[in-house]
Amino acid sequence: MNYTYQSFNMRGKSKIRPYYDLVANIAAEEMGRIELVANTINLLLDQTEASTDGVTPPLNFSGTTGNPDHFLNFGLGTIPGGAGGKAWTGENVFNSGNLKLDLLHNFFLESGARMGKIRVYESTQNPVAREMVGYLIVRGGVHQEAYAKALSDLSGVHVTKLLPVPEIDSMKFPDARKYIDRGFHKILYRFSPDDYRQIGEIWNGISAIDGSDREVQDGPPEGGEVPDLAPAPPLYAPSVNAEDIEEIARRL
Amino acid sequence: MNYTYQSFNMRGKSKIRPYYDLVANIAAEEMGRIELVANTINLLLDQTEASTDGVTPPLNFSGTTGNPDHFLNFGLGTIPGGAGGKAWTGENVFNSGNLKLDLLHNFFLESGARMGKIRVYESTQNPVAREMVGYLIVRGGVHQEAYAKALSDLSGVHVTKLLPVPEIDSMKFPDARKYIDRGFHKILYRFSPDDYRQIGEIWNGISAIDGSDREVQDGPPEGGEVPDLAPAPPLYAPSVNAEDIEEIARRL
Amino acid sequence: MNYTYQSFNMRGKSKIRPYYDLVANIAAEEMGRIELVANTINLLLDQTEASTDGVTPPLNFSGTTGNPDHFLNFGLGTIPGGAGGKAWTGENVFNSGNLKLDLLHNFFLESGARMGKIRVYESTQNPVAREMVGYLIVRGGVHQEAYAKALSDLSGVHVTKLLPVPEIDSMKFPDARKYIDRGFHKILYRFSPDDYRQIGEIWNGISAIDGSDREVQDGPPEGGEVPDLAPAPPLYAPSVNAEDIEEIARRL
Amino acid sequence: MNYTYQSFNMRGKSKIRPYYDLVANIAAEEMGRIELVANTINLLLDQTEASTDGVTPPLNFSGTTGNPDHFLNFGLGTIPGGAGGKAWTGENVFNSGNLKLDLLHNFFLESGARMGKIRVYESTQNPVAREMVGYLIVRGGVHQEAYAKALSDLSGVHVTKLLPVPEIDSMKFPDARKYIDRGFHKILYRFSPDDYRQIGEIWNGISAIDGSDREVQDGPPEGGEVPDLAPAPPLYAPSVNAEDIEEIARRL
Amino acid sequence: MNYTYQSFNMRGKSKIRPYYDLVANIAAEEMGRIELVANTINLLLDQTEASTDGVTPPLNFSGTTGNPDHFLNFGLGTIPGGAGGKAWTGENVFNSGNLKLDLLHNFFLESGARMGKIRVYESTQNPVAREMVGYLIVRGGVHQEAYAKALSDLSGVHVTKLLPVPEIDSMKFPDARKYIDRGFHKILYRFSPDDYRQIGEIWNGISAIDGSDREVQDGPPEGGEVPDLAPAPPLYAPSVNAEDIEEIARRL
Amino acid sequence: MNYTYQSFNMRGKSKIRPYYDLVANIAAEEMGRIELVANTINLLLDQTEASTDGVTPPLNFSGTTGNPDHFLNFGLGTIPGGAGGKAWTGENVFNSGNLKLDLLHNFFLESGARMGKIRVYESTQNPVAREMVGYLIVRGGVHQEAYAKALSDLSGVHVTKLLPVPEIDSMKFPDARKYIDRGFHKILYRFSPDDYRQIGEIWNGISAIDGSDREVQDGPPEGGEVPDLAPAPPLYAPSVNAEDIEEIARRL
Repeated sequence: MNYTYQSFNMRGKSKIRPYYDLVANIAAEEMGRIELVANTINLLLDQTEASTDGVTPPLNFSGTTGNPDHFLNFGLGTIPGGAGGKAWTGENVFNSGNLKLDLLHNFFLESGARMGKIRVYESTQNPVAREMVGYLIVRGGVHQEAYAKALSDLSGVHVTKLLPVPEIDSMKFPDARKYIDRGFHKILYRFSPDDYRQIGEIWNGISAIDGSDREVQDGPPEGGEVPDLAPAPPLYAPSVNAEDIEEIARRL
Repeated sequence: MNYTYQSFNMRGKSKIRPYYDLVANIAAEEMGRIELVANTINLLLDQTEASTDGVTPPLNFSGTTGNPDHFLNFGLGTIPGGAGGKAWTGENVFNSGNLKLDLLHNFFLESGARMGKIRVYESTQNPVAREMVGYLIVRGGVHQEAYAKALSDLSGVHVTKLLPVPEIDSMKFPDARKYIDRGFHKILYRFSPDDYRQIGEIWNGISAIDGSDREVQDGPPEGGEVPDLAPAPPLYAPSVNAEDIEEIARRL
Repeated sequence: MNYTYQSFNMRGKSKIRPYYDLVANIAAEEMGRIELVANTINLLLDQTEASTDGVTPPLNFSGTTGNPDHFLNFGLGTIPGGAGGKAWTGENVFNSGNLKLDLLHNFFLESGARMGKIRVYESTQNPVAREMVGYLIVRGGVHQEAYAKALSDLSGVHVTKLLPVPEIDSMKFPDARKYIDRGFHKILYRFSPDDYRQIGEIWNGISAIDGSDREVQDGPPEGGEVPDLAPAPPLYAPSVNAEDIEEIARRL
Repeated sequence: MNYTYQSFNMRGKSKIRPYYDLVANIAAEEMGRIELVANTINLLLDQTEASTDGVTPPLNFSGTTGNPDHFLNFGLGTIPGGAGGKAWTGENVFNSGNLKLDLLHNFFLESGARMGKIRVYESTQNPVAREMVGYLIVRGGVHQEAYAKALSDLSGVHVTKLLPVPEIDSMKFPDARKYIDRGFHKILYRFSPDDYRQIGEIWNGISAIDGSDREVQDGPPEGGEVPDLAPAPPLYAPSVNAEDIEEIARRL
Repeated sequence: MNYTYQSFNMRGKSKIRPYYDLVANIAAEEMGRIELVANTINLLLDQTEASTDGVTPPLNFSGTTGNPDHFLNFGLGTIPGGAGGKAWTGENVFNSGNLKLDLLHNFFLESGARMGKIRVYESTQNPVAREMVGYLIVRGGVHQEAYAKALSDLSGVHVTKLLPVPEIDSMKFPDARKYIDRGFHKILYRFSPDDYRQIGEIWNGISAIDGSDREVQDGPPEGGEVPDLAPAPPLYAPSVNAEDIEEIARRL
Repeated sequence: MNYTYQSFNMRGKSKIRPYYDLVANIAAEEMGRIELVANTINLLLDQTEASTDGVTPPLNFSGTTGNPDHFLNFGLGTIPGGAGGKAWTGENVFNSGNLKLDLLHNFFLESGARMGKIRVYESTQNPVAREMVGYLIVRGGVHQEAYAKALSDLSGVHVTKLLPVPEIDSMKFPDARKYIDRGFHKILYRFSPDDYRQIGEIWNGISAIDGSDREVQDGPPEGGEVPDLAPAPPLYAPSVNAEDIEEIARRL
């Protein structure tokens, strides 16, 4: 939403088109990102199984230290908020309208996000979580580098040379490395058939990670299968039982 | 974001496909909606002009009762929050995972939103604001009716007969009426070339407004021109002056 | 507080008296409800005992995942907020002033609350908690049904036929069933000796649960004993020791 | 709600009965207080009239600096929050469970509230507002004095001699004085036919304002008429027009 | 920050100098207090060690029930907020500008804080935590007593006789007692070489704890060593590895 | 508080001393900054005079669009929060513990703050406000440049060449220029007699504004007179009347 609102509010769009295209295009990838993260969280939460032993309650989260809202209010679904239970808020959006300042912000924001991802990676051995976070480290790294490059172009200062922030190579994380080996660190996907044509005026030159050539690729990356989560009877989600669902299907 | 997270978290997607398609598809239109609203607000704010008389300050908002954040922090841009200055928050998202309950929520949510739009319409004579709000009354009305229809199908109760909520005909608002006259009230746009194919299993039958046939139309509605707001020197947005911008354009 | 403010702010009270009476009367039962819930929570928290073994701290909550505010700031008392630690806020109140919309809201609100109660019931085997939640499922169900009936009367649409929302019979929960067996699901208590006389114009007809006749009963239901919690020395609540308390009693 | 939760959570109720009775009884008067304040605010807001001149919008709040939520979301009704637009929150509740500390808090709370009331009084010449605030200064003064007296009894320190806080005599405010002249400053109403019988063990002795004898009076004070606000067409509250309302009345 | 803003905003500073000096001086000690608390928390958090066994994650907080923000966002550092995860907010500041009311508030605030400290003390056997909390009980007790004394002087009521609030002697807590034995309960440190000279006009007479003479001592108390926390590799704090740090040191 | 907590939590202080010294030292100047801002706001608010004409209320803020909390709750004092009425919150603190990231954050933070100051400057012609903001632009510019320099030293990238952000010369603002003419833009004051000795290892070289040599100066800048605001009778601040204050003075 940060980049989304920056793209809406940007003045002089026609004059600074490549910057508008870059911000709007990254905003599009971020929209896909929340779907990816949500699906991963849902898969992790899905491991919880209902008990029928009469001792453990059917909907059991007494052993977890996670947010009870996942169980009580969100039906084991993802919550639009952070690990500490705080909801996302529009106050997170920084949008001064001044291009240099907003790019500096975005570069900082991605740098802080990279720190957070690395720490989440380091705080779990769960292969599903690490797989997702490894991917995010690489793709978030592209956004971080893209804003650094934009700021470099705008100012003439080699901001990209500040990378990596924090100072640890993404190659050190095996689940990030495998995506780098496949070249995901050098590609900026163009998320529109018609728009965002000028992102290549910024995303060019050589990768801060391995010196390979940066590339713009038309169209989004190939996505994974959207998980088809089984109905969860103790949650009454999506509904009471399989028969009901069949009946709904018939009625339509 | 409410419908977006509902679509991410919905269990049994393959079994209740038409409902998933409906929620996800409306989520897509809502994304476009915030861009429309943002552009309209930006145009309204753009009427403010810088003073150079030495008495009125260059960046003057002393006469307005609006949120000073528009001027100081958002560069005359739209803020992701409400009229009273409260930021949007993830706590707004209701997503129980239970289909009937979530549809009931969505129907209520659109009904409350319709009330708000009507009151905003009634509280201004500004033609730009009324134009936008009139359009939103009609399109939001489609979403309201679609959720009512979905709930009707799911339950067998004629929830659509509750419409209109509140009990005033959209035809009474001239700036809504003109969009009804053009048929915008009976069309559900399908916002994906490949997905959301089953929305027509719900969006069918006759319009609650005028009894015409409901239609699904492939692809989004034709949009307007995105405004190209002039740089605003007293805001230093996007940058100090036109020359700078030209130079940036050249440098890239 | 939601219904309380709706009752305060309702316009045209004399003309839509039965609706005013219904909302205000349910508001009264809700006030009693928070006392019931608070007493139950206090009894559950009261099971914690002070340790004197020199290893476990005297005031021990290190093994719980609950909110430390119960121990540190509320003296093992109930906090006016939710399970996830969020305080209740006036932003929860929906009160458009439009009768149809407010009734729709209230019906939705009770439906969401029923979902929450059912999930809490399913997430514990604690008999005290289930006893209370079972009772709340039944009485909250009366409120849900009453708002559905009010909306049915107002609109002519059979909204009560949407029940149950979510689609599970309250009879399935043993601790709810026993209260249904005693008829608590068909009674609307009139919480005033003189007012709220017209609630029977709405609360009539047959129960959505079992088809028995709905009844209005004058006066509140017979309540339980208010627990007289023993002083808790490690909390210094209500005071340091029994002697202090005796002395206070003498001094008065 | 502060005193309400304190009364729910108080330990050793049987041993410190007069204190429990006092806190619970004042909580009851506070419940009536919010109804009084809400009705007054509603009457003040009711002066706004709908325009039909085609220039001023039908629902006009452009000249006010108040909270737009009154108009858009609350239908000219009272909002459960403060003058600055902040909603009431459960975080406002202080309830340590330690009697001395909670009484000290309550005395402070009423003192701060008295300051606020006095400043509101001083910031308006509106006779309706001053009438209400004058009454609140007197009745809030009783609560302030009652907590001071309770703390005096508990501790043996003459806390009541700190009064008035702030150091201005309520007699200086004409709209407060008239209620003092009628003796409202020395009476503690007992808000229950059966309970709260021991409040007189605390509320006795002589008034801090004029040395007259403090009295406990059984039953609430005689209330005023609840205003019957006319329907507001531009708000669609309670409904679209008088005919609708008549029809609703007939249908029931 | 509460006392800091009270000192900034106090009117008539020249006329009520001793009160200004007292509030501003205590504000200064409170600034040092947050550094003390932060260092203690950091030392407690520092006990967490990184795992290298390939099973436990390198950054492991899965066994704790504390706030994950400590690990993910604050690099094992102290968070400016409370135990329940709520951030400190400017809404905590009470500053009416009325001297009597503000002193009453401050006395209440310190009393509530004393309750909190005592309960934290009782809820842990950790010697480092108890050492710090014991010290805070004593020093916070000085602030509590100083505000009570100031209110006594201002009003002529013996507010200091209300102490202790809550009614338990600090001597009962061994880690508080040792600081009382060293006289820390009777000293008010003067935190400025030149200012706050009139605090002695309030802080005089005899201690509420043991009847010894209150003293003003020029200059702050002798502080402890600021801990020099080792770099934490799994956090990348302050940086990746020792070599980097050496190189930074050289480069400067 | 941001820099304050960063200084508390910084790991490896002995190894990266110049950075610790820089952050802690700027934190100290920021503490003085809030006193400066508070005094200026108080002087601006002080222009409001009490009316005694019987029409305008004694405490009159009906003509202002500012926050009513200034009048009702803060006694015309400064509120610890922003222009839009939002209180300062600990959530504003960014403190990852990673040095490079925290410096990048601080550079961004000061850049955003500079944007805000410039816009406030441009939005008022009030000479008192412009005087203060002009000064803040210069001193905040020093902090911005210091963090840029620190990041330059740490990384070897010429981050200081990004200045100015936003791209407007501070010399353009007359009330900033006069402080630059006096050299305030090149001086970093050392706010401790004994500590922060290594800030000169970072703050050296030539000013980004005019190429003059950067200097470290021992001790804080000479401050102005703390305003001695007259008592405000309609606020009862600090107390009711002059006589009361005299008596308090005598009693002490």
